[in-house]
Amino acid sequence: LSISLNLGLIGAGRIGQVHATSLASRAGRAELAVVTDVVPGAARSLAERFGVPRVAADYQAILADPSINAVLICTPTDTHAALIAAAAQAGKHIFCEKPVALDLHQTDGALSAVARAGVKLQIGFNRRFDPSFARVRAAVASGEIGTPHILRIVSYDPAPPPIEYVKTSGGMLLDLSIHDFDMAGFLIDSEIDEVYTRGGVMIDEAIGRAGDIDTAVTFVHLANGTLGTIDNSRQAVYGYDQRVEILGSRGAICTDNAYPNTAVLSTADSVHRDLPLNFFPQRYRQAFAAELEAFVEAVIDDRPVPVSGADARKALAAALAANRSLVEQRPVKVSEIA
Amino acid sequence: LSISLNLGLIGAGRIGQVHATSLASRAGRAELAVVTDVVPGAARSLAERFGVPRVAADYQAILADPSINAVLICTPTDTHAALIAAAAQAGKHIFCEKPVALDLHQTDGALSAVARAGVKLQIGFNRRFDPSFARVRAAVASGEIGTPHILRIVSYDPAPPPIEYVKTSGGMLLDLSIHDFDMAGFLIDSEIDEVYTRGGVMIDEAIGRAGDIDTAVTFVHLANGTLGTIDNSRQAVYGYDQRVEILGSRGAICTDNAYPNTAVLSTADSVHRDLPLNFFPQRYRQAFAAELEAFVEAVIDDRPVPVSGADARKALAAALAANRSLVEQRPVKVSEIA
Amino acid sequence: LSISLNLGLIGAGRIGQVHATSLASRAGRAELAVVTDVVPGAARSLAERFGVPRVAADYQAILADPSINAVLICTPTDTHAALIAAAAQAGKHIFCEKPVALDLHQTDGALSAVARAGVKLQIGFNRRFDPSFARVRAAVASGEIGTPHILRIVSYDPAPPPIEYVKTSGGMLLDLSIHDFDMAGFLIDSEIDEVYTRGGVMIDEAIGRAGDIDTAVTFVHLANGTLGTIDNSRQAVYGYDQRVEILGSRGAICTDNAYPNTAVLSTADSVHRDLPLNFFPQRYRQAFAAELEAFVEAVIDDRPVPVSGADARKALAAALAANRSLVEQRPVKVSEIA
Amino acid sequence: LSISLNLGLIGAGRIGQVHATSLASRAGRAELAVVTDVVPGAARSLAERFGVPRVAADYQAILADPSINAVLICTPTDTHAALIAAAAQAGKHIFCEKPVALDLHQTDGALSAVARAGVKLQIGFNRRFDPSFARVRAAVASGEIGTPHILRIVSYDPAPPPIEYVKTSGGMLLDLSIHDFDMAGFLIDSEIDEVYTRGGVMIDEAIGRAGDIDTAVTFVHLANGTLGTIDNSRQAVYGYDQRVEILGSRGAICTDNAYPNTAVLSTADSVHRDLPLNFFPQRYRQAFAAELEAFVEAVIDDRPVPVSGADARKALAAALAANRSLVEQRPVKVSEIA
Repeated sequence: LSISLNLGLIGAGRIGQVHATSLASRAGRAELAVVTDVVPGAARSLAERFGVPRVAADYQAILADPSINAVLICTPTDTHAALIAAAAQAGKHIFCEKPVALDLHQTDGALSAVARAGVKLQIGFNRRFDPSFARVRAAVASGEIGTPHILRIVSYDPAPPPIEYVKTSGGMLLDLSIHDFDMAGFLIDSEIDEVYTRGGVMIDEAIGRAGDIDTAVTFVHLANGTLGTIDNSRQAVYGYDQRVEILGSRGAICTDNAYPNTAVLSTADSVHRDLPLNFFPQRYRQAFAAELEAFVEAVIDDRPVPVSGADARKALAAALAANRSLVEQRPVKVSEIA
Repeated sequence: LSISLNLGLIGAGRIGQVHATSLASRAGRAELAVVTDVVPGAARSLAERFGVPRVAADYQAILADPSINAVLICTPTDTHAALIAAAAQAGKHIFCEKPVALDLHQTDGALSAVARAGVKLQIGFNRRFDPSFARVRAAVASGEIGTPHILRIVSYDPAPPPIEYVKTSGGMLLDLSIHDFDMAGFLIDSEIDEVYTRGGVMIDEAIGRAGDIDTAVTFVHLANGTLGTIDNSRQAVYGYDQRVEILGSRGAICTDNAYPNTAVLSTADSVHRDLPLNFFPQRYRQAFAAELEAFVEAVIDDRPVPVSGADARKALAAALAANRSLVEQRPVKVSEIA
Repeated sequence: LSISLNLGLIGAGRIGQVHATSLASRAGRAELAVVTDVVPGAARSLAERFGVPRVAADYQAILADPSINAVLICTPTDTHAALIAAAAQAGKHIFCEKPVALDLHQTDGALSAVARAGVKLQIGFNRRFDPSFARVRAAVASGEIGTPHILRIVSYDPAPPPIEYVKTSGGMLLDLSIHDFDMAGFLIDSEIDEVYTRGGVMIDEAIGRAGDIDTAVTFVHLANGTLGTIDNSRQAVYGYDQRVEILGSRGAICTDNAYPNTAVLSTADSVHRDLPLNFFPQRYRQAFAAELEAFVEAVIDDRPVPVSGADARKALAAALAANRSLVEQRPVKVSEIA
Repeated sequence: LSISLNLGLIGAGRIGQVHATSLASRAGRAELAVVTDVVPGAARSLAERFGVPRVAADYQAILADPSINAVLICTPTDTHAALIAAAAQAGKHIFCEKPVALDLHQTDGALSAVARAGVKLQIGFNRRFDPSFARVRAAVASGEIGTPHILRIVSYDPAPPPIEYVKTSGGMLLDLSIHDFDMAGFLIDSEIDEVYTRGGVMIDEAIGRAGDIDTAVTFVHLANGTLGTIDNSRQAVYGYDQRVEILGSRGAICTDNAYPNTAVLSTADSVHRDLPLNFFPQRYRQAFAAELEAFVEAVIDDRPVPVSGADARKALAAALAANRSLVEQRPVKVSEIA
């Protein structure tokens, strides 16, 4: 007997389309049964492109539909907490993009609603499912590199987002770096204890006028003693740069970027290759598919989800601490925030 | 208006499943509508796994179905020519695995049937669609490396096939090397003019007792003057090894294998990484999807298919010439065969 | 007319032998004419091995010898400042290993003596002359990568030094990290403005009992706005790990370690290569030769040396600031020290 | 007690200077005591540059000097055999550049003279001493990759030599490819049994008018059953391309080119690095030093030299077979020649 989940998609924008692509394979154990968006045309367009049978007028219609087992929340961040709470109350399992909210209070409210309802909530920290980062995690877990001593994370976007996005993003540390705070805890299997963040506006002054930074370096100290650094930029002109490395007592592991092909050209000028995959839909295609598969299996098999609401809270707390460190120009304990 | 092809799959074995996987995405412009196999359970199992709506009793039932636009022939090689002829007569467009047949006479018969029927026939030389090999082709086509002088192809399987398969495969040169003969012509955009093949049994004496070889080196001379070598083995213990390189008048290009991740581990013993993707379903996953997409688009848009029956005939002729060279221990012109 | 310098070597230990090796080529414009060591057997042994014509009883004998143009000071750190002052007073040009001293007062005394005497003083920050790091410097200087935004330095020794060495080394930050503080300023062509250092004892408790640390991460802020991190460890079990990378506004540059050969082995277990060059005499062989050559040419041509006493003072000040940061657990401005 | 050889250098051209560079280090067990050249100014210039004490009027003067233990023959190929015979008769040990002669008769004459005199003769197949190729040899010898099945050698020069050189070189197969014939036997520890060579003029028609080719592919069959290919070109526009790889029953090994630095630049256009070391003096610097060191030690310790006259004869025979194969357009057994 083969069980298959019926999923509803709330939000038909870029990340919603990424998930629709992942789910378009019939080979999985889940069916994208319905989609909605505040822009009805966006929902219709996605439904047509990916063969989704129904378009709902609004998210309430999806939550009221007893045939839907779970929802994917792919709306702007400021709606996440309320949608999580409503979906939980409706008894739906929930996959929600990060972050749950831009503050801990709203986050805690949403997590409480989930706990009361007894549904599952998985957060979209997709990078944990990247084959290379997962290999790093496995090397730590298996003891291949011994006890971790030093962690290094590079995380650069290819280009800054639109200024309108910047204004509502919560700032680079909550929008971009939060992925890296999650990765630090995940890879080392510990929690961030202290951060010291320095940053500035080096790429686009409009970002500064919008009250944000575009470049930052964050020192992290983890509870188990590991020391680490996270480098962030809104613009690496050569494309999405996403690498980690760890030095441990018995060895080291490092990863490289992903490339569209392996061809190396040697000419009279240089030995060169094509640029790395430009941004997250390409670079993390496998990871996006794997995180949904893991969610679907956790729901069907009634097992814990691999990325919990508590994980989201920890990454948010670290990002808020980084924000405070940036402003107050001093190392900040995460415990000051959380 | 969105047009979608209805496809019938004939043969539910390993390569049939590879194509079913590619087609399982609803995002494409084709639907796998029916499947059949001489082993009914195999067809049912594939249908269930990939959500194929119908299982046909036999291939005749598929060919008789007016709703089916095209068929994928994924049966053993000795059935290809007859199935192509029957499908052509039934007016179906055809995607057929390589080779069309193990001799030129049968091949020509099948191609004639296709020509008479005016249907499209694409052959499954999947490697042309590999992003790295396609990049090499593009470098030649664009002049990035100038006029090609020397071509090198490495093509090693991870492990020999079962002896039963070896016995009916037509021999390694027709079964394995034929892909490389196709690649040589494709990458250089020329035709193989002469081959000199030396080979032997180095891996498993049972292969020798079955009348085949498991290791070979083939010199190729192309009509445009390019010199080349093709190295083949039935066993690279580290996995599927598939690389090409070309030296040209203005530069060189080479490719590497594909790996499951980019992680590099440094320990007290060595600096190492995980083995390359082990075999063709993993290594050529993207290529398999791309070749079907190209076929579907060629049919829908009524454009020439990217890999024609004539291409298959050329690769076969080169493989037959290589067989003769091996036996007669001398360079053989392809024109002696074809 | 070919001019050649007569050099005297003071200190025949490990680093003295490294320089003797560099000078053993007759092709250069310098001759190692005399050597001395507090252990006479060490001086004799070096003289025999490298064909140095004379062994002096003590450094005073070298300084008193009018045929000697310049001295190489390769003694323990606590003797550097006094030897520099004496050599300067004797009118000898000076090449001295880093650091000049473990505090700024002694350093300033030595530099004053040099200034008064009008001789040249070059400090042995050999890494500046490494072909890969020099290439990074060139990429910054030429604008190839635009304005630097983020600097990353990895600097790990293969194994901790003897505890006796640790006790007199001034601590890891002054002994090991000082090279990286120099590199940060050199590569970016700016000065370190602020440091925040966290470290601990992760490798050997005996190091902790000796009052030192063996692992550290240092955040650096440079005067021109560049943000950076320096990761240090006394033990990378796979060997000497010395890499840098810089993200700039127009691109990025990164370096790899140096290896004894380029051979890559693929077996049933892994794809692997031999360990990187294990320690500084191997890794920086070319750099050691190049720094001496630069010194010799600066003296002969009466041009400024490429690594001045002022450079040494800057690196020392940064290292002292890092020490204070480690103790006081706060970011420290270098201006607080210097 | 330290023994040191007195060496005489006959021929002060490019390769003579390479060896003088290697010997310029006093750290070795050999002294370059005298040099001669048919162009006296060339000998004087080399002597001055490398500190060689004496310039001899002609090679006879060197051979007559009882203080000279061994000679390095670095003259044009057509003088090698006679110089070897004369040096042997004078009782000098001999290091001679490859090839001994362009035909087997002269070669045999020289080798007989050496045998009669009981002196040592080492041939300058420098590539055997390259750290990467030596690592490949070690991997075969140790069984790391099991029994060799397929060998691949790439050997491309950066640019064609002057046409005057081409005319007296004996042709590309005897001048350039002979190194690779030696490598094939050396790496596999077997002898070349059969060759099939195809080549042509693809780079410069003047080379064709001089009766030579500039591009060739050679199939080789070794006595132990290994199959192989050797690719040769007079022009790789990106620089000296020297790589080998071997597939064996238990694994594979491959090497890469040598680069001036490890820096990788990522810009908006590509991910690139500087060109490989351009030609043999740079690429094989370590190998040139190591071969002389091995010669000196073999003489001092009275042990067999690592590259014998018999080795030179084997490589020559394979090259002559390749020449015949090229002309007669058929596979040629080396036994047909030798």
